[in-house]
Amino acid sequence: MCGVVGVVGTVPVNQVIYDALIVLQHRGQDASGICIIENNCFRLHKNNGLVRDVFQSEDMQHLQSGNFGIGHVRYPTAGTSSASEAQPFFVNSPFGITLAHNGNLTNAHQVRKKLFEQNRRHVNTNSDSEVLLNVLAHEIDKVQGIVTSKDVFQSISNVHKIIRGGYAVVAMIIEHGLIAFRDPNGIRPLCLGMRKQSGSFCEYMVASESVALNAVGFDFVRDVAPGEAIYITFQGEIFTQQCADKPRLTPCIFEFVYFARPDSFIDKISVYSARIEMGKKLGQRIKEEYSHLDIDVVIPIPETSCDIALQIAYAINKPYRQGFVKNRYVGRTFIMYGQKQRKESVRRKLNAISSEFKDKNVLLVDDSIVRGTTSKQIVEMAHDSGARQVFMVSAAPEIRFPNVYGINMPNSNDLIAYRRNSNDICKRIGANELIFQRLNDLVDAVGIGNPDIDEFETSVFSGIYVTGDIDQKYLDFLESQYINDT
Amino acid sequence: MCGVVGVVGTVPVNQVIYDALIVLQHRGQDASGICIIENNCFRLHKNNGLVRDVFQSEDMQHLQSGNFGIGHVRYPTAGTSSASEAQPFFVNSPFGITLAHNGNLTNAHQVRKKLFEQNRRHVNTNSDSEVLLNVLAHEIDKVQGIVTSKDVFQSISNVHKIIRGGYAVVAMIIEHGLIAFRDPNGIRPLCLGMRKQSGSFCEYMVASESVALNAVGFDFVRDVAPGEAIYITFQGEIFTQQCADKPRLTPCIFEFVYFARPDSFIDKISVYSARIEMGKKLGQRIKEEYSHLDIDVVIPIPETSCDIALQIAYAINKPYRQGFVKNRYVGRTFIMYGQKQRKESVRRKLNAISSEFKDKNVLLVDDSIVRGTTSKQIVEMAHDSGARQVFMVSAAPEIRFPNVYGINMPNSNDLIAYRRNSNDICKRIGANELIFQRLNDLVDAVGIGNPDIDEFETSVFSGIYVTGDIDQKYLDFLESQYINDT
Amino acid sequence: MCGVVGVVGTVPVNQVIYDALIVLQHRGQDASGICIIENNCFRLHKNNGLVRDVFQSEDMQHLQSGNFGIGHVRYPTAGTSSASEAQPFFVNSPFGITLAHNGNLTNAHQVRKKLFEQNRRHVNTNSDSEVLLNVLAHEIDKVQGIVTSKDVFQSISNVHKIIRGGYAVVAMIIEHGLIAFRDPNGIRPLCLGMRKQSGSFCEYMVASESVALNAVGFDFVRDVAPGEAIYITFQGEIFTQQCADKPRLTPCIFEFVYFARPDSFIDKISVYSARIEMGKKLGQRIKEEYSHLDIDVVIPIPETSCDIALQIAYAINKPYRQGFVKNRYVGRTFIMYGQKQRKESVRRKLNAISSEFKDKNVLLVDDSIVRGTTSKQIVEMAHDSGARQVFMVSAAPEIRFPNVYGINMPNSNDLIAYRRNSNDICKRIGANELIFQRLNDLVDAVGIGNPDIDEFETSVFSGIYVTGDIDQKYLDFLESQYINDT
Amino acid sequence: MCGVVGVVGTVPVNQVIYDALIVLQHRGQDASGICIIENNCFRLHKNNGLVRDVFQSEDMQHLQSGNFGIGHVRYPTAGTSSASEAQPFFVNSPFGITLAHNGNLTNAHQVRKKLFEQNRRHVNTNSDSEVLLNVLAHEIDKVQGIVTSKDVFQSISNVHKIIRGGYAVVAMIIEHGLIAFRDPNGIRPLCLGMRKQSGSFCEYMVASESVALNAVGFDFVRDVAPGEAIYITFQGEIFTQQCADKPRLTPCIFEFVYFARPDSFIDKISVYSARIEMGKKLGQRIKEEYSHLDIDVVIPIPETSCDIALQIAYAINKPYRQGFVKNRYVGRTFIMYGQKQRKESVRRKLNAISSEFKDKNVLLVDDSIVRGTTSKQIVEMAHDSGARQVFMVSAAPEIRFPNVYGINMPNSNDLIAYRRNSNDICKRIGANELIFQRLNDLVDAVGIGNPDIDEFETSVFSGIYVTGDIDQKYLDFLESQYINDT
Repeated sequence: MCGVVGVVGTVPVNQVIYDALIVLQHRGQDASGICIIENNCFRLHKNNGLVRDVFQSEDMQHLQSGNFGIGHVRYPTAGTSSASEAQPFFVNSPFGITLAHNGNLTNAHQVRKKLFEQNRRHVNTNSDSEVLLNVLAHEIDKVQGIVTSKDVFQSISNVHKIIRGGYAVVAMIIEHGLIAFRDPNGIRPLCLGMRKQSGSFCEYMVASESVALNAVGFDFVRDVAPGEAIYITFQGEIFTQQCADKPRLTPCIFEFVYFARPDSFIDKISVYSARIEMGKKLGQRIKEEYSHLDIDVVIPIPETSCDIALQIAYAINKPYRQGFVKNRYVGRTFIMYGQKQRKESVRRKLNAISSEFKDKNVLLVDDSIVRGTTSKQIVEMAHDSGARQVFMVSAAPEIRFPNVYGINMPNSNDLIAYRRNSNDICKRIGANELIFQRLNDLVDAVGIGNPDIDEFETSVFSGIYVTGDIDQKYLDFLESQYINDT
Repeated sequence: MCGVVGVVGTVPVNQVIYDALIVLQHRGQDASGICIIENNCFRLHKNNGLVRDVFQSEDMQHLQSGNFGIGHVRYPTAGTSSASEAQPFFVNSPFGITLAHNGNLTNAHQVRKKLFEQNRRHVNTNSDSEVLLNVLAHEIDKVQGIVTSKDVFQSISNVHKIIRGGYAVVAMIIEHGLIAFRDPNGIRPLCLGMRKQSGSFCEYMVASESVALNAVGFDFVRDVAPGEAIYITFQGEIFTQQCADKPRLTPCIFEFVYFARPDSFIDKISVYSARIEMGKKLGQRIKEEYSHLDIDVVIPIPETSCDIALQIAYAINKPYRQGFVKNRYVGRTFIMYGQKQRKESVRRKLNAISSEFKDKNVLLVDDSIVRGTTSKQIVEMAHDSGARQVFMVSAAPEIRFPNVYGINMPNSNDLIAYRRNSNDICKRIGANELIFQRLNDLVDAVGIGNPDIDEFETSVFSGIYVTGDIDQKYLDFLESQYINDT
Repeated sequence: MCGVVGVVGTVPVNQVIYDALIVLQHRGQDASGICIIENNCFRLHKNNGLVRDVFQSEDMQHLQSGNFGIGHVRYPTAGTSSASEAQPFFVNSPFGITLAHNGNLTNAHQVRKKLFEQNRRHVNTNSDSEVLLNVLAHEIDKVQGIVTSKDVFQSISNVHKIIRGGYAVVAMIIEHGLIAFRDPNGIRPLCLGMRKQSGSFCEYMVASESVALNAVGFDFVRDVAPGEAIYITFQGEIFTQQCADKPRLTPCIFEFVYFARPDSFIDKISVYSARIEMGKKLGQRIKEEYSHLDIDVVIPIPETSCDIALQIAYAINKPYRQGFVKNRYVGRTFIMYGQKQRKESVRRKLNAISSEFKDKNVLLVDDSIVRGTTSKQIVEMAHDSGARQVFMVSAAPEIRFPNVYGINMPNSNDLIAYRRNSNDICKRIGANELIFQRLNDLVDAVGIGNPDIDEFETSVFSGIYVTGDIDQKYLDFLESQYINDT
Repeated sequence: MCGVVGVVGTVPVNQVIYDALIVLQHRGQDASGICIIENNCFRLHKNNGLVRDVFQSEDMQHLQSGNFGIGHVRYPTAGTSSASEAQPFFVNSPFGITLAHNGNLTNAHQVRKKLFEQNRRHVNTNSDSEVLLNVLAHEIDKVQGIVTSKDVFQSISNVHKIIRGGYAVVAMIIEHGLIAFRDPNGIRPLCLGMRKQSGSFCEYMVASESVALNAVGFDFVRDVAPGEAIYITFQGEIFTQQCADKPRLTPCIFEFVYFARPDSFIDKISVYSARIEMGKKLGQRIKEEYSHLDIDVVIPIPETSCDIALQIAYAINKPYRQGFVKNRYVGRTFIMYGQKQRKESVRRKLNAISSEFKDKNVLLVDDSIVRGTTSKQIVEMAHDSGARQVFMVSAAPEIRFPNVYGINMPNSNDLIAYRRNSNDICKRIGANELIFQRLNDLVDAVGIGNPDIDEFETSVFSGIYVTGDIDQKYLDFLESQYINDT
């Protein structure tokens, strides 16, 4: 997962983009980058690391004179494991185009090959963002004469036809404007904001999540529609157009479970409310199907699951207790010469308040269970702290399939739910009971916020890929990539 | 406030100290340091910054061959505002002694002068820790012949007579052992842990909070008593002795309100339980005295106050809602050439979930109110998010006096409760009601955990200083220091 | 001035290019860069600073797997004063092309404009190298189908027609080969080397100076001819072709006076021998015209002039003495808060051995006199050291005109010889006599090494620009650039 | 070898010390440090590396407010091979004393042990400078009451009795003054300078070489006498006293051969003149004993030997030619993963001008021959460049013994002259003839500059150690240290 932001302002935008990236940092802590346009030239600074570490005073000085810019925070996805592939990228022909995106192209490999062989465009990294940039650049280069908004939209229409996958894109063309578009299924989120300036002039901002707009004083206007493109010229004119053939909104449901901030709205759904609903659904089911459990206390595994756990507690009328303390500061395990590597322990990240576990039947609430190794250790901690029985509930269903739209999941073999049923998993993590959210409950919980959405991208749970073009061959290719990485 | 740790191990201790400091980082984010003994020489690494930033692989390699060590995280206190004064410090005579401490000496200025004039000991920084180290070094140097545990304890007895204030100290003497001691009033916390090794051999650890012991696999043994000293030789023998004349346990109550981690026990009191009790007291009082308020929801201002707020909600039987989202990532405001400095806004740190405020009477819960500027902005955010009425509750009473024992407070004039009553403060922060915990309620809430404690250090609320030696002259001196700093 | 190097090897070339750049560092200390091709992708590392500072172990690891590469050391020239414009540059379309060059384009401004407007190629920096790269890229992109050596040469022919100035270029095209070419007047030097490998396989290297070939074990093959292009495919095939219409060898004479290393051969002329000849000419003239001077000793101003001074001494049969000691280590003058800036003094760089000056008539020898400020201080030092009379001789004639082919000279107004005759200059620098080499003597001294050369680029002395296209307008443009810089 | 400097000024001294260290950098490129006193506290900055790299603007700001300071550049000597032992060092008791020194203590090991056992003074590094500092500190601490100049001198007298070896020391005592002293044999150089300020006030400076005084505008006053101490109070009063029992001036002759800058005077002898005399002696001898050699040209191996070679050329009436070009920029050989380490070659440092060697009998002149590996490669280069016969002359005699007074020499076994005669050595380096300076000629050449000196420290040539206390046991200890190092 990644976060993107783009701004067409009337004053320098470096601090605004920086602030927005800080707010979007939860979407990617791997790398950070900002590219602005100053005097018709790009000024770019990017590197591996958190925003607060990547941007020092001298870097911000370097970016201080541009009113237009884009920014990016990166979470490593398949194919961009290398450390040197921070975004934004730029090409100098035609015009100079810079681009950053959130998502994953499922045909990057083929497109890349074609780009070189047919279009002579060299892609220097393994990043599918650089592929996407070059596809866009090539399409824009095909335009004869002056490039109008119509031409921009035509180019993006062509791009949609060439690339596959999930993507939310921000880009800028020198002497033209800022572009933003979203894949035809609207898998990855993107929204538009506005800030009125004196006179009739407006500043515009696009961002992965609405919370980024709020944080820097832009008003939320609306979500970008699936397949839609937005073009804001550097003179401040805004154009929008649907550029996909059969757009259909099927947003990624995992955004609501885990990735997005609770205070964001995605496709009109409050992430916070969606989580409350997940809690309600789970609470209802526990009341109905697990009343025998004799639960004494509901304890969240911080932080995403707190709101969910609180709602479960209300639903089953049991006390909610913050029984785990999360370490706010993260340390490393150093490998000293001649010493053996220690196993990374969850105890470095969490600590239990024993009094809340002692002689109690505890219901632990997590947002999801991926590998299961952390869950196992947490259950163990609960037992060690004196819990009589430990029940675990996951706000998401069993994760059994790879994600191909930009969420970095481990290899299928490493998913605890891969070819295992709930009972097996429960035993593996050592819990006395294990309750997974049902997929239809999850879909209902999220969907209630926007009845217009009739399907979500739920492939990691269901194995159904909304783009309809994912075959076993591609999944095998992904697996082989993992093998090569390790 | 600072955090200290000391270990006498049987294997290298660099990672253990590092891990412990990570867990104690909430006590000080300003600077970090570790000093170990390798082959009868000190290996020291310290710098400004968080533990994770100060210690890189090469630094840990440098520290990798010592079985004894001490560590420190620093929170700037009066007199150590300078950036170059990280701890531990060391002197080379006698023997080589290294020291780190948490607390503040109230007579550092005079002692420092005397050290130079009478004992020819130069203190090169403004740190009272360096003063303390030199007092200790001078006392140990007075011992004739071989230095026994008895001599060590005599030296510490002398130190107690010379210095005043609150302090928890760890130190090491080359070719001798590790020393730990606590001021005669036990103002600052310190506890002892142990880890059994194969055979009858034990490893020992002292730390500011019990949670540091837990995190690295040491068993909590007991709190160090006020005035008590512990001496653990590098052969693993442990000696303890009361070194103060009239020791009396009056621990700092602010540790429980704000500083300490909830999962720590200090002087037998669970910090978590103390906070629950604070919530109970407040809930009870609101029920009794503020029933007219028609509260719809209880919302904590994260993070310290969450447990308190939850308990208030239970007590008054109103829903508890996590209506504020805390930004996990911190950004900076850069001053660009020619731009004006922007006002630091709480909005960079917190964001409101509007649906939890809209048309509601909200009770906001904070641990304490110091300057009041943050409270004012938060109340404003609540109003902006649609709250009908905003009530604020502080788990601590009004803060009206400076702290002289190691907690860095602003100048009295900058305390919102300085010479103001609750009504005035309420108006200033724009709340519809403001409820402060009563001091006796706070004392009861904390004291219930350990009935043996008959007094707490509560000076910031009461103006009563347990050491009995703080006069107006000293307080004026403190004020003048602030003026000089600004 | 800059230095370039390019290698097509059969094993990794990072160390070879590094070593060559070290040897070429005298041509530019401002910035350094290496770009290699690994697995059909560019790996680039460049930064401001000396080679030894820019390339650390991790940087070299990053470059370790490529058998083809180019490198560059930069001396700031007009238009690239910015710190962020190190070379090589690269574009990704067509194919991926990287380029570095030594020289200066006199029509960069116009070409840049045309590139954007007609060819939609954006040049992101002020560097004329990036302009040159894009011109080359555009020409190669015009080739239909597979790009053969013939196409490469045609493209370079076109480049020669578009750009003006002096330039020696190395470039690489991904999946194709390495290109090297020299401007049609051969103003900037470039030579070809070869290293036999096992079998019939050869490795090739091009470099600004022959000494770079020697240093890394390549055999000098020949100078690249003016206007000629060399194309070495990554399979090791070499092609050469004349690509200019009317090529004519008029090498820059300043290379021999000052820039090039004495152990290099440029266009068949030994730089060392050329300097010896300069000394002979001067010695002869002093004997004939200045016999009245009663010179006691000949003292070079280190280091370039040592060989010249030695030869003068032999010619006039006077002792040669190394009376100035050059500081091998360079320091800085720091501006402390509240202190005034000190005048940079030549005394930080040179010190006089008083015994060689005391009561003597000394003949000081320098390679050239540009601003005259250093000369003035040196004359003063000589007087201060007790010299009776101080005569100064310059191995180059009066410098009165700007250089437009890549040598960074001060603004005309700052040239001491600008609108001044020798007498005036002598007075200004405080010497008792001042002797400039005559231009025809300089030309003879250098030209004797290669009688085939019938003209040199001598514009800084003569105001005659061999490219025939420099008008007052361009010179005024240059002047205005200086004004803007200051 | 190291360089030291100390200044008592009336204005901030950071830049003056920095400039002086730059000028002394030839004495040590391993580490650099400056310690100043500001407001009765030390401000210290030191690190491994050259002065220009160690001191950046922020470091100089840190040192900007002190009028008194000392500085040091380090060349690694036996026992300080570790990277973390830059000078100056300081102790805080008594008073705060900082110290830097040039030289080596031959009884550091024993003194260090005694310091800890008898005086409880811990020395934390392997540096004998820290030992020396603690000896001085202990002696000063023995003074009762106020420390007068008489007490300082008495302390230094005691120091002379305790330590053995060669040393030139600068130190400062807080609230007292600057101390400088030289070992009783005057082995290591030290001189005093003065700068008149307005009124009757003077600033004083001590430095390893007179050239450091000149460079920063101080007038040379005189050499510090062997065993003498100088004490300059921070009020500007100067005291001097002989503190050794039987002082005797036997300066290290190697300073004149190699270490010192030619423009320095040491013990009244011009280093430059001494080298000229070395050349005269050699020239005379070649004329007398080697007239059969049929020398065509005299070529120095830069840089120290240039003046010597020039004088030889004059003496034998043959041309002097700078036939070797020294690389001004130094590169590294990187070890890439999977690649073998390349042999470091002298070709990276030197290059031959072939025309000066071709078909000639060349006399190469070097200052000294230590390991012989470089000489062998240089002779080879000369042959490769076409020389008919290659004769080598060394301005110093055969080096056969270790140096114990601060010059870092390889282990005896690695000295080419160890147990070999001149013929053997000549064969080993592949020369056609090899001429070593005779020791008595060297002594005469240097001694002529100051007839008052009747003996020099010449142990590396003669095996005679002027301190009279070096036995085989100590030399064996040195050997064993080398073994441990490798």
